[in-house]
Amino acid sequence: MGTYAITGSASGIGAAVRRLLEDQGHRVVGVDLADAEVTADLSGPAGRAAAVAGVLDASGGRLDGLVTAAGLGPPRPAEAILRVNHQGSVAILEGLRPALAAAGSAQAVQIGSNATTTTPGIPDDVVEALLDGDEDLAVERLAPLPAEFAPSLAYGASKTAVTRWCRRAAVTEAWVGAGIRLNVLAPGAVRTPLLQAGMDDPLYGPLIRSFEIPVGEPATAEEMAAWVVFLLSPVARYACGSMIVVDGGSSARLRADDWPRTFQL
Amino acid sequence: MGTYAITGSASGIGAAVRRLLEDQGHRVVGVDLADAEVTADLSGPAGRAAAVAGVLDASGGRLDGLVTAAGLGPPRPAEAILRVNHQGSVAILEGLRPALAAAGSAQAVQIGSNATTTTPGIPDDVVEALLDGDEDLAVERLAPLPAEFAPSLAYGASKTAVTRWCRRAAVTEAWVGAGIRLNVLAPGAVRTPLLQAGMDDPLYGPLIRSFEIPVGEPATAEEMAAWVVFLLSPVARYACGSMIVVDGGSSARLRADDWPRTFQL
Repeated sequence: MGTYAITGSASGIGAAVRRLLEDQGHRVVGVDLADAEVTADLSGPAGRAAAVAGVLDASGGRLDGLVTAAGLGPPRPAEAILRVNHQGSVAILEGLRPALAAAGSAQAVQIGSNATTTTPGIPDDVVEALLDGDEDLAVERLAPLPAEFAPSLAYGASKTAVTRWCRRAAVTEAWVGAGIRLNVLAPGAVRTPLLQAGMDDPLYGPLIRSFEIPVGEPATAEEMAAWVVFLLSPVARYACGSMIVVDGGSSARLRADDWPRTFQL
Repeated sequence: MGTYAITGSASGIGAAVRRLLEDQGHRVVGVDLADAEVTADLSGPAGRAAAVAGVLDASGGRLDGLVTAAGLGPPRPAEAILRVNHQGSVAILEGLRPALAAAGSAQAVQIGSNATTTTPGIPDDVVEALLDGDEDLAVERLAPLPAEFAPSLAYGASKTAVTRWCRRAAVTEAWVGAGIRLNVLAPGAVRTPLLQAGMDDPLYGPLIRSFEIPVGEPATAEEMAAWVVFLLSPVARYACGSMIVVDGGSSARLRADDWPRTFQL
């Protein structure tokens, strides 16, 4: 049986992945603000470093898999959303990469979002700053955004950046070359505390409810966990640098013709 | 246990899906040129109609799932590739849609390809003709293509069209509205007779071998079958209209930044 680290392990998709892995007999090292083996705040460098150190200590420096599920959404402040969702994931992935490499064969799953393909107006300059590793510049670039949309746009930008980071990193020597498979699961609406907090908000609730889900209802966290655990399993090792969209059809409804897109040399 | 129809059931991914479903106790109605419950040639209307009629007869008009895995690739002639891969899949899906709807809850998986995102120069006008349902016009539009590339471009065009068809259809009343989930699995290089025929060809062999697979080796048909069977399982029902790329990193290597792509209203 393996050892897996999960950020955001105390609620939502992270907690559902934890239960499923533990039911299968695996050992889980959870990271969250509370109710976890490693308590840490992933919004800044100190908390991220503490999280990495705590997981390395608890796991003995060897991990069969990693799931970065910690994330914030509207109505939380745009800056916190940006910091936790992007660098709060990338810093954990980079910090734990040696532990994944030590396993010889490992798999990591980042929780992205179909917000990347369904939220209009995501600011590309914020995405670029995040990908350049300049989190503070990305935060500065949030300033001109309309206050009421900034959290949603920060959410979309953070998930776009982390998805692109994963797709770029996955095929490099440091990752695939070290036997580590890196992929993104991009859910649509899922019944989690993050979704509920948005639904309960007077500004975001109506927006979220107006978002069409062709299959009818949001998914359960357990359904998403099944995808994550499949992506962590040995039989899924041919997936590398993929964004796996599982969103009840929302992205296909909005952008069926946008991908796949042909290209010319 | 359920009843599943599979085209291309006698070899490659289709045969591997058949074995896995039968191992789980399901009943499979296979369609292929030979060695199947229903023998039919999917390159033309008569064969497609015979395949639909044969499956309806063998299944009693009720299917829990459908996998359209029948497909041709280079060095087969471009016209045959186009006809089997696109309309040979779409006609089966449309013809068996009532049987899937009769189950109340069903899942269908189309085998696409990462050729959609990695083959340069796929002719958009051929894709459009296929999506317009004008297979003969699509074949005419192959004529100006350089003969040595026509089979590869026809392959890419057929897989692009069928993927777009699936993404458009998946979210309509006829499909999601009838309780049917429709998704595309887009493999990269997989050890199948289709790949081997290309590798053995003096023209296409070197081209195929030059195509980079970041994870190192082509997948096995059994690995792809595990993805298909997961997509057919009830826990995967939140996937709708997705193209699931499982290609050893080839697409991420070539087009990491092309998707997800932001959009403006």
